[in-house]
Amino acid sequence: MSAISIALLGCGTVGTGVIKVLEKNAHSIEKKVGAPIVVKKVLVRNPDKLRNVATNATIVTSFDEILNDPEIKIVAELMGGETPAKDYMLAALKAGKHVVTANKDVVAKHGRELFEAAESSHVDFLFEASVGGGIPIIRPLKQCLAANQISEIMGIVNGTTNYMLTKMTNEHMDYNDVLAEAQAKGYAESDPTADVGGFDAARKIAILASIGFGARVTLDDVYTEGITNITIEDIEYARELGFVIKLLAIAKHDDRGINVRVHPAFLPCTHPLAAVNDVFNAIFVKGDAVGETMFYGRGAGELPTASAVTADIIDVARDIRHNVSSRILCTCFEQTHIYPVTKTESPYYIRLLVEDKPGVLAAIAGAFGAQQVSLHSVIQKRKVEHCTELVLLTYRVSNENIRLAMNTLLGMSVVSKVGNVIRVEAAQIS
Amino acid sequence: MSAISIALLGCGTVGTGVIKVLEKNAHSIEKKVGAPIVVKKVLVRNPDKLRNVATNATIVTSFDEILNDPEIKIVAELMGGETPAKDYMLAALKAGKHVVTANKDVVAKHGRELFEAAESSHVDFLFEASVGGGIPIIRPLKQCLAANQISEIMGIVNGTTNYMLTKMTNEHMDYNDVLAEAQAKGYAESDPTADVGGFDAARKIAILASIGFGARVTLDDVYTEGITNITIEDIEYARELGFVIKLLAIAKHDDRGINVRVHPAFLPCTHPLAAVNDVFNAIFVKGDAVGETMFYGRGAGELPTASAVTADIIDVARDIRHNVSSRILCTCFEQTHIYPVTKTESPYYIRLLVEDKPGVLAAIAGAFGAQQVSLHSVIQKRKVEHCTELVLLTYRVSNENIRLAMNTLLGMSVVSKVGNVIRVEAAQIS
Repeated sequence: MSAISIALLGCGTVGTGVIKVLEKNAHSIEKKVGAPIVVKKVLVRNPDKLRNVATNATIVTSFDEILNDPEIKIVAELMGGETPAKDYMLAALKAGKHVVTANKDVVAKHGRELFEAAESSHVDFLFEASVGGGIPIIRPLKQCLAANQISEIMGIVNGTTNYMLTKMTNEHMDYNDVLAEAQAKGYAESDPTADVGGFDAARKIAILASIGFGARVTLDDVYTEGITNITIEDIEYARELGFVIKLLAIAKHDDRGINVRVHPAFLPCTHPLAAVNDVFNAIFVKGDAVGETMFYGRGAGELPTASAVTADIIDVARDIRHNVSSRILCTCFEQTHIYPVTKTESPYYIRLLVEDKPGVLAAIAGAFGAQQVSLHSVIQKRKVEHCTELVLLTYRVSNENIRLAMNTLLGMSVVSKVGNVIRVEAAQIS
Repeated sequence: MSAISIALLGCGTVGTGVIKVLEKNAHSIEKKVGAPIVVKKVLVRNPDKLRNVATNATIVTSFDEILNDPEIKIVAELMGGETPAKDYMLAALKAGKHVVTANKDVVAKHGRELFEAAESSHVDFLFEASVGGGIPIIRPLKQCLAANQISEIMGIVNGTTNYMLTKMTNEHMDYNDVLAEAQAKGYAESDPTADVGGFDAARKIAILASIGFGARVTLDDVYTEGITNITIEDIEYARELGFVIKLLAIAKHDDRGINVRVHPAFLPCTHPLAAVNDVFNAIFVKGDAVGETMFYGRGAGELPTASAVTADIIDVARDIRHNVSSRILCTCFEQTHIYPVTKTESPYYIRLLVEDKPGVLAAIAGAFGAQQVSLHSVIQKRKVEHCTELVLLTYRVSNENIRLAMNTLLGMSVVSKVGNVIRVEAAQIS
């Protein structure tokens, strides 16, 4: 069969990777597809800045040269960002071209619109690389676990913050030092907000929740809290108590509906996600038939991301060869209530600086008790100046009640400072 | 669209699970497929022994009632064993019915024949449940990692032996005690040979290697060694040296070709597979683009296996809805040399009982040296009766040389006993 022509939008890290992978493994990819895949055109903003990658593709600076080329069947959008990526994808879909993307921003915000365009044009719209880099997770959720009701998706989906937390844990480095190192290594951007603020993870869990639960979850539905307040002290106390601190992206589906959030959490060291370190990502999925599963690998980088993008290209090419399309598009069939983070429940770790005098502990316990927060354990740790550091572990309690209790505590004269309040996940405190 | 009728061959553990899953999640499955899936007929040997599962399906005892029923589009073979499962599947494929199976024996031995029949009849042949129970691994290898040259697949793919080794490690239980307990719990058969001898794992790695490397690997190509010789002493020494002992199913593809084997191995405790405990399975895959990935979950059981079988059924049903088939069949396009285990290289752990007298260590070191086996470390451990237990760790060495060295040692009068010889995987001993 004649070659299948594709175009890449963008030729940065991921685009370069896709060209390399398609070139290096051309032989086996052609066997799998039944036809060669040829990169015909590559859209770049500035052709002079094109990376050092050998390609026979025509370099173009106008999207129209791709949109109006009837030979191009598949468009791989690898430029990132919302604009103009979304417009280009929509235009390509409407023009009857299959679209593959690694763009979590656009998928998390405009997934529905893109799916609808793909459906009307009878083309494929695939985005395996948008979550977890090279880790197979979108297709496994849509196909391999299709027989399940998924009740929980819990992921370490941001490599930068996982690298930072791992360094803090293993090398006792301070947050600021580890951030500076991550920036020097190129793992963190000069403005690290998207990573350390949890916003990158929020986009990814919105996508995973939508697919896992079959109900549209958008970025606005995700409660988001970053790792900027995590200190070495918290990490040390976690270790003493048998936990590690991870930035978790969590989506749960229970009787009350769906809850989706990103925040640092205490995770038991025995949990499969606890051993996921450095820039590695992993997604833990619980289904009513399959039980607990986990998908692990590199969540970013040139070649891992290219692995996922190229897999999508191969899948579309197989569809083209078999004259089929839109086999699996949007799977959000359900309207499910999304409930707010205040209604979620978990045990909590609380670190307080309190005055060192009689009756303080009773007063604090009383303030918690007034909001139905039961304390599992109170560890009176060390003197900090004239104060005492208290580390508390609560039983399972609603986020609302913890918030009310913390408000009361902040108003108490014996409480000098709230060090941190961190959720405990996947543990029975009893 | 009208319902898609399927038939189950066998209604034991997995068949019961499939009926339950199709029933419980009928609503979402219908949405995903675009048509309801109905179990029309179930083949059983003895209808009186039918398990306590509610089904409207017609129970039949003759396969012909399924084969000759034109309404039945998909046959799910869940009886296990080679005969008559293979013949039934072949007949169904030839009759133009799609086939889904959980049968590792038949896939590992007769995969080619079944694929050819599926291809001639333009139908699907899927077998996600044949390896790793509910863990998505076949489809991820065939699709999500299709852009990669896979260089290594390393799995814990037998839950029984992983449960036993975990118990031995964590509870210091003796091999025979833990086997008796596993049998009592139903994790091990009364004749445990298939599990503890590594033969179950061998079938699974033959399947994974074929798909991962795109070259046919059959059961006969797999070197197989079980866990029957593993003792608590070995497990304790492993721990001291920073390792755990796991029964690994390993397939490697390098310049020399393919090597496939199942054997117990020392694995560094930091390796992702080292934390896979109890009946859990996991498959670690290395590709040139994706890097290291891992797939984790329950490798057996009614509902996990049913999750994988039902996913395959859903996939075929989606194909039927879209009037496509055989989209992805056999992917073994390559002829690759399979080299024997004797040519593989790794460090080795060796435990010996030797006479307690001067010059013994020099004699032993000399015997190893004569076969180019360099010793990394020698730990002289404890007195056992009138002997000394020596624990040795070698540098990387060929299996052939280790065998020759061990033969020499067995002939030496100062060597009372060879306690064990175990490969070290995924570690640089330097």
